[in-house]
Amino acid sequence: MNLREADFCIVGAGYAGLTAAYRLKQAGYTVVVVEARERIGGRVWTKYLTDGTPVDMGGTFFGPGQDRAYALAKEMGCETTPTPNKGDSGLMYKGKFHRYKGLIPDLDVLSLASVWASFQLLSAMSKQVPPEAPWTAEKAREWDSMTLAHWIDNPIHALTEPAKVMITALMMGLFTCHPSEVSFLSVLFHIAAAGNDIELQLKVEGGAEQDMVKGGMISIANKVAEKLGDCFVFESPVRAIAYDEHGVTVVSDKVTVKAKRVVVCAPPNLVDHIQFTPGLPATRAQLLQRMPVGRTIKFVAVYEEAFWRKDGLSGEVAAPDEALSISLDTSPPNNTVGTITSFCMGPPAVRLAELSAEERKTLCLKALMQRYGARAAAPVQYFEHDWGADPWTRGCHMAHFAPGILTNFAHVIRQPVGPIHWATTETSMYWNGNIDGAIRSGERAATELIEATKQAAADTYPYASSHQPIN
Amino acid sequence: MNLREADFCIVGAGYAGLTAAYRLKQAGYTVVVVEARERIGGRVWTKYLTDGTPVDMGGTFFGPGQDRAYALAKEMGCETTPTPNKGDSGLMYKGKFHRYKGLIPDLDVLSLASVWASFQLLSAMSKQVPPEAPWTAEKAREWDSMTLAHWIDNPIHALTEPAKVMITALMMGLFTCHPSEVSFLSVLFHIAAAGNDIELQLKVEGGAEQDMVKGGMISIANKVAEKLGDCFVFESPVRAIAYDEHGVTVVSDKVTVKAKRVVVCAPPNLVDHIQFTPGLPATRAQLLQRMPVGRTIKFVAVYEEAFWRKDGLSGEVAAPDEALSISLDTSPPNNTVGTITSFCMGPPAVRLAELSAEERKTLCLKALMQRYGARAAAPVQYFEHDWGADPWTRGCHMAHFAPGILTNFAHVIRQPVGPIHWATTETSMYWNGNIDGAIRSGERAATELIEATKQAAADTYPYASSHQPIN
Repeated sequence: MNLREADFCIVGAGYAGLTAAYRLKQAGYTVVVVEARERIGGRVWTKYLTDGTPVDMGGTFFGPGQDRAYALAKEMGCETTPTPNKGDSGLMYKGKFHRYKGLIPDLDVLSLASVWASFQLLSAMSKQVPPEAPWTAEKAREWDSMTLAHWIDNPIHALTEPAKVMITALMMGLFTCHPSEVSFLSVLFHIAAAGNDIELQLKVEGGAEQDMVKGGMISIANKVAEKLGDCFVFESPVRAIAYDEHGVTVVSDKVTVKAKRVVVCAPPNLVDHIQFTPGLPATRAQLLQRMPVGRTIKFVAVYEEAFWRKDGLSGEVAAPDEALSISLDTSPPNNTVGTITSFCMGPPAVRLAELSAEERKTLCLKALMQRYGARAAAPVQYFEHDWGADPWTRGCHMAHFAPGILTNFAHVIRQPVGPIHWATTETSMYWNGNIDGAIRSGERAATELIEATKQAAADTYPYASSHQPIN
Repeated sequence: MNLREADFCIVGAGYAGLTAAYRLKQAGYTVVVVEARERIGGRVWTKYLTDGTPVDMGGTFFGPGQDRAYALAKEMGCETTPTPNKGDSGLMYKGKFHRYKGLIPDLDVLSLASVWASFQLLSAMSKQVPPEAPWTAEKAREWDSMTLAHWIDNPIHALTEPAKVMITALMMGLFTCHPSEVSFLSVLFHIAAAGNDIELQLKVEGGAEQDMVKGGMISIANKVAEKLGDCFVFESPVRAIAYDEHGVTVVSDKVTVKAKRVVVCAPPNLVDHIQFTPGLPATRAQLLQRMPVGRTIKFVAVYEEAFWRKDGLSGEVAAPDEALSISLDTSPPNNTVGTITSFCMGPPAVRLAELSAEERKTLCLKALMQRYGARAAAPVQYFEHDWGADPWTRGCHMAHFAPGILTNFAHVIRQPVGPIHWATTETSMYWNGNIDGAIRSGERAATELIEATKQAAADTYPYASSHQPIN
């Protein structure tokens, strides 16, 4: 048995795990990071074209309010660059292409007003939900008994059919599953956790898709990993965690790690696959059964140039009634190539996954031709990634809360179980579901470990100050 | 490596697995049954007092319409015996005890009428839901976008506060979780799968709690296991299943089984812990993430005699606003002792699990004293079992469907994945969630294996009849 000892073990080398490990190392502790994949990044994954141009296949964007993400980028000496977005946006609806300016596509006036009013209402209602404890909202029980789909189905909230289609598509983009799967309380929580303004989550300029990272989103993670040095064990899924008052034993395929504490930074749906001894408290075990993730297939088409810009198009196209419901220009800042990233989310992703890769490519390129013209038919490079089929993710972007979960189970979501602590974006009170949320969760977990260790030292040496005792 | 070969492997020795294994053996095939626990029965578990009196800690009852369960009992030479239920029933409400006759407790007339009307409505609506494919109901999408709690919250469905409390408690008894977790479509499916009459599921005489099995519910399983003989491997959790066109390799702690096909007969929340190679199709993998189980703590108090009968009480007490929401007389037919079984289900079970065993016992006995008088304070034996803390169940009675799952994922629930077939009561179209459903699922899976094997033989020998080719 390959045994390693460290102060702390980190399970998972996504942004949560990397951040936790780095903050702990900065505080003077030793860490071992155990990762199932052969790479760091988790749900962030940058591919490179032969000329070095980055193509983000996973998490791609930062936006205003995501302070911890920008801070980490700065700390690592990485630069962000605005997501290309000049020109008119497009709307595909009922097979026809419409150009428009601004955030909300060019629907009829009543539909526009209805979408706008519903967004205002959701943003206003979110102020009644404290993001650190959504289950304490006065109407928590009522809102957690209602699905998002039921709310949308109310004609007051979608006055016309196009408004309903639009709201549904935008929500499916946020939660990457059918709105019937999502608790209405969790929608308000999600908005509250991101500045009480749903538009922040949907728009490029001034919103959560505002910036990309030069060199690809993995660049920051690469720098963190560099500073962490030789503490990684890759291709080593964690199978079991045993724990008692003395510490933890983390058993993975390649290494067994003995440590004082562990931070589990794997998506909740995968945590449920780890065998804990003793078993987790039943409320937490039942919470883990109840945090399914959505479904996203990402399509990236790379062209010699961003030819749509010559037509005055930004590249942003919403297609609420199509499988690929959104396309964005994600070309690199030096414009060596032109890149369109398209997303297929929720039930359409489930359906598309049943086709062959060739059929999906045909479908994708046909959609792109309708959006950008004939030149879109012949990308120089083409990639797809089904995050639902990826064994170490099994879904994307994030876990969502079905009705009844926030009010009955989620109060334990950040609660450590003895020496076991929990991170990933799903545990974050702010920018939950985003990279920023993952970074925040890693920093929170690191703080917990440092505090707990100081406390343990203080408990052992009753006369010691809050500083570590001098040996 | 301890290797065994057989025609078929069965994962899990609950009623589904035992039935599948037995039907396959009857058809002339060899089977190996791999079980995580040290015993058969799964969610059925009979304890015995020192004098041999059986005490069922898990599944306990059969009722009219559960034909496959009665048939298996008969086939195994086991007898059923009516659940004791003579005398008046009791209702604890707001701390007061009320006696009543019949199914529905003695509430005020309006509350009574409201509960009755809602039950009639649910039963009638269930006729629009085909149990073999609830997702095809005309209103499937609408009903699957609504939670059961939301339906109950509608004042039309619960005209008074007591009616709401009563309906909520009865539903929490059926689904063992808060009604906000349950899709309204799944409620109608559940009723449709059990004779389109919700009362059948709630009552003792003429309902799903009508009969017990002499010698305890495990007796039938014991007989089946006896006939199966030496094909069991116990205390051997299955960790991995590899499969291809030639068959399956099932890796468990004690044995690796090579077989043509496997039937996975573990609750869906535990199936998600098995590592499949190649990975399961994403839709099935995502369905498994989405089948959480409820929570039940069962309390059994054994007395020297069924003393409540002298007071003219049946022993059945509903307590919709208390943690132990139902108590039943489960004394053995020869009346060697008097037994009261009480159930704590859903959110109250989550809360009670956080107390110490001693605190729970105090709470249970206090409740029993209020229901049956001072003699209830001193049982000669007392047991509790928290099925949510049991590592090889992690919840009880059954998995339920949250909103959006039946319409987006459940169409694959019985679909084999290559040589992997699926059983357990959760896959049953009839008496889903009951022992009868488990037995039906095992018989269905056995039929699938037999048919597939005949088909494979026919494919190999193109000129063969539907009979096995003669070698």
